[in-house]
Amino acid sequence: MSASPYETDLDRCAANYVPLSPLSFLPRAAAVYPDRIAVVHGAMRITYRELFARCRRLASALAARGIGLGDTVSVMAANIPAMIEAHYGVPASGAVLNTLNVRLDAAAIAFALDHAEAKVLLTDRAFSATVKAALGQAKARPLVIDIDEPEVGGEFLGTTDYERFIAGGDPDHPWTLPDDEWRAISLNYTSGTTGNPKGVVYHHRGAYLNAVANVLSWPLPPHPIYLWTLPMFHCNGWCFPWSLSLVAGTHVCLRRVEARTIFRAIADHRITHFCGAPIVLGAIVNARPEERVPFDHQVSVMTAAAPPPPSVLKAMEQQGFRVTHVYGLTETYGPDAVCAWKSAWDGESADEQARLKARQGVAYPLQEGLMVADPHTLQPVPPDGQTLGEVFHRGNVVMKGYLKNPQATTEAFAGGWFHSGDLGVMHTDGYIELKDRAKDIIISGGENISTIEVESVLYRHPAVLEAAVVARPDETWGESPCAFVTLKDGASVTASELIVFCRDNMAHFKTPKTVVFGPLPKTSTGKVQKFVLRDQARELPRHD
Amino acid sequence: MSASPYETDLDRCAANYVPLSPLSFLPRAAAVYPDRIAVVHGAMRITYRELFARCRRLASALAARGIGLGDTVSVMAANIPAMIEAHYGVPASGAVLNTLNVRLDAAAIAFALDHAEAKVLLTDRAFSATVKAALGQAKARPLVIDIDEPEVGGEFLGTTDYERFIAGGDPDHPWTLPDDEWRAISLNYTSGTTGNPKGVVYHHRGAYLNAVANVLSWPLPPHPIYLWTLPMFHCNGWCFPWSLSLVAGTHVCLRRVEARTIFRAIADHRITHFCGAPIVLGAIVNARPEERVPFDHQVSVMTAAAPPPPSVLKAMEQQGFRVTHVYGLTETYGPDAVCAWKSAWDGESADEQARLKARQGVAYPLQEGLMVADPHTLQPVPPDGQTLGEVFHRGNVVMKGYLKNPQATTEAFAGGWFHSGDLGVMHTDGYIELKDRAKDIIISGGENISTIEVESVLYRHPAVLEAAVVARPDETWGESPCAFVTLKDGASVTASELIVFCRDNMAHFKTPKTVVFGPLPKTSTGKVQKFVLRDQARELPRHD
Repeated sequence: MSASPYETDLDRCAANYVPLSPLSFLPRAAAVYPDRIAVVHGAMRITYRELFARCRRLASALAARGIGLGDTVSVMAANIPAMIEAHYGVPASGAVLNTLNVRLDAAAIAFALDHAEAKVLLTDRAFSATVKAALGQAKARPLVIDIDEPEVGGEFLGTTDYERFIAGGDPDHPWTLPDDEWRAISLNYTSGTTGNPKGVVYHHRGAYLNAVANVLSWPLPPHPIYLWTLPMFHCNGWCFPWSLSLVAGTHVCLRRVEARTIFRAIADHRITHFCGAPIVLGAIVNARPEERVPFDHQVSVMTAAAPPPPSVLKAMEQQGFRVTHVYGLTETYGPDAVCAWKSAWDGESADEQARLKARQGVAYPLQEGLMVADPHTLQPVPPDGQTLGEVFHRGNVVMKGYLKNPQATTEAFAGGWFHSGDLGVMHTDGYIELKDRAKDIIISGGENISTIEVESVLYRHPAVLEAAVVARPDETWGESPCAFVTLKDGASVTASELIVFCRDNMAHFKTPKTVVFGPLPKTSTGKVQKFVLRDQARELPRHD
Repeated sequence: MSASPYETDLDRCAANYVPLSPLSFLPRAAAVYPDRIAVVHGAMRITYRELFARCRRLASALAARGIGLGDTVSVMAANIPAMIEAHYGVPASGAVLNTLNVRLDAAAIAFALDHAEAKVLLTDRAFSATVKAALGQAKARPLVIDIDEPEVGGEFLGTTDYERFIAGGDPDHPWTLPDDEWRAISLNYTSGTTGNPKGVVYHHRGAYLNAVANVLSWPLPPHPIYLWTLPMFHCNGWCFPWSLSLVAGTHVCLRRVEARTIFRAIADHRITHFCGAPIVLGAIVNARPEERVPFDHQVSVMTAAAPPPPSVLKAMEQQGFRVTHVYGLTETYGPDAVCAWKSAWDGESADEQARLKARQGVAYPLQEGLMVADPHTLQPVPPDGQTLGEVFHRGNVVMKGYLKNPQATTEAFAGGWFHSGDLGVMHTDGYIELKDRAKDIIISGGENISTIEVESVLYRHPAVLEAAVVARPDETWGESPCAFVTLKDGASVTASELIVFCRDNMAHFKTPKTVVFGPLPKTSTGKVQKFVLRDQARELPRHD
């Protein structure tokens, strides 16, 4: 039998096949909108023509040092122009971009540099103290290049600085796409609450598709003015460093993310869009009057990470922000799910709208699958909004795998789906809702208790600024919910008042038995460190 | 030397790699927006849940007849629901969709059925006369299935009708993506003004990417109400049958495309978007008062094919339409270039805006390259707006090739670029502007004359409805421009008046020496048949 005519003499060639890479977006933006402002940083303005030239200089300077395919270039930096440029210039040299979490300690940075076998380290002077200590501990001997912002200060660690380094590069250096879209583009270490962090490898194909999907799902209009409240070291800023070129938007850098600087930037630059964890939303909602700057335009906000409490979502909307709730993990390039809004919800009350929107939703437009299923059989749970299961992801915006960790990769992909470790339910309308991380769920008297659900009720109390609930060993029930709470400035409430409030608003068995007041321990990405709280809960004096 | 860690134990698997296919968009739309109206056709309404079920029935019914990978299913139909369903159900069975141009004659249809080796033919009763004759001439013996709309009439040719056929299919049939994104999804025959038509093969990857790029480049908002003025048989409706699922929009079918039905649909259904060749724009701009229906919302129009005369663009804008000008060919899945608007143009006069917008522009967001270059050396012409060259396209939205025509495929892709046969210039701002098809250019006294440029001036005369300019043999100059002109209802102008008008508005050597009044011969896709006019020009009595 002869081959199908549709498969004969119809092969790929240079005319009809180009590997997908977000590196394609920048030259187009520079060609079509050369004079548009690509980057704002303090008094600095960089046009798209200039940004492209600077990225080519960076790629060229790296290549001149012998950096290329398969090499790792690590970056330790705040949300500053060099960080945006690294997202293009580093992969354009063929190397893999490894952004480091600036809140990590020296030991964790040293671990990453060694595990990634970093050949080059671009490091923001602001973090010199940590990086110096890390370099002292690490076996890796990367070429160290300081990113120098004189007003920031900090020790110089390398033999050259970033501006001098790229000045030696060629602004007309050929812009080279990967020869295969499956090539690694970046490496992101998970926060690793237990054991060593895992190195999540992204490929060009997935970065391209999720950068596009961000535009589709928000949707991001042409030429947004985008504020960098989300750290770019976190899942490559959810792929937004690349999405922005696709829509020729303006990156507004922000070194210090706090209510005052956010409001100031919104008013001064007429910010149209920003992303941020619920902690950023909380800072905005609870900002003091003197931190606020009035603005008269619509600001769209994308939020994810810890599930946002409905009360915070509602307050954001009331303060003039339009919130889109997305969900994902480091392993899914940041968000790969969105609580897609339905016009049928327009008529609902603000409370009901916030409740609907607090759900994690449906797969991103270019992601292929999202399900809640039994973690062993992968059989989907019934869509009843009740039955707990693990959340699974599948498609082109799932990582290439964990670097040098085939066992973890194999386990994560068992059965052809990515095992997220998140627990959730599937609602009747096909929207998923997270209930907990698998390791955070409380099992009390044989019943599952979602700590997220208990926290949501606590957030509705007017005195509560932040709340985190964990399991506490309980002689009678096995485990019982224990709440750690931070109060708003000047507010006061007693533990028993909060427990009564909870009993009035949820099933009794879910009500915290214990309430502890005080600041919450956070991971370097701003997530509450529940394993620390669990330890604290275990050490508490016995129930009366 | 050991392999790079980035290439070790990080292979593709079912969790992180799924072939790109626009077939993915429909199940997502059906899951997220099951009750949203997907299709409007007369009094009929089809929700996304129903549309997906009907497409699965179609795939299932085809599979039950043994249709699968590499088989061709041809469709001869107007812009009706079965045509939309064929765009999903046929490729979901593994087969290749071959939409036939309903304006072709029996011999051309027979040629296509034979060349495509059609196994199934879905045929709209409205075209029974042609199809019956074609089946009589063709060697192919496809299973013939009539698409029956009783009010339309026409002979039954097959043994079953479409509704009965899909009723026998399973609405829960597994929805199968291709095993390889390079698989053929559709087959589109070029109009073939000389020689036999060529069969342009599209692959799933390109259809996916251009369906996405349509959304990005327009941009298409969530839930547009889209009117089908562009024939779906033309480049698969520029991939919009697939784009609409991505944004969960509503397809409004339209069997008869004329000013009256367009205005009626815009007002009745609050159409937000439609695509159409300049001939459709011309029909709208020149509609008689009794054909118009007032509407009070913004309608966005995408236009391509023959370059739109600036005067028509300006009139459209003045009548409340917002026009986006795109450019492409059958070989590029319809549009793969767009005249991307720049805010710097907002302050220009309406005339200047129309002139800027009449240019073909820049590559689509997900296309990789567009250039004007020497057809032999592929050396780009200087971006001076003057130097004529051939337009070349490159990237993932270029066809797989020509079916069973390796020589034409090889020639089309020589040098790693798709040779379009279009002639144009590159402006200083990087925007291309078409000047002519290679075969249409007039060479007069050694100077190139762009027939499009001469036509643009003629369109500015208030009496002119349509104009086409071709070369006429000229003893002195070699060739001279000859204009064929259709006047608006009730308007009058003499040939010498038009020639004077042209002399006042362009270089003298470009001015038509001859003007002929009368209707213009059109191809089945509505393009003026310049080869017919060239023959007529050759037969004209000698110049006085």
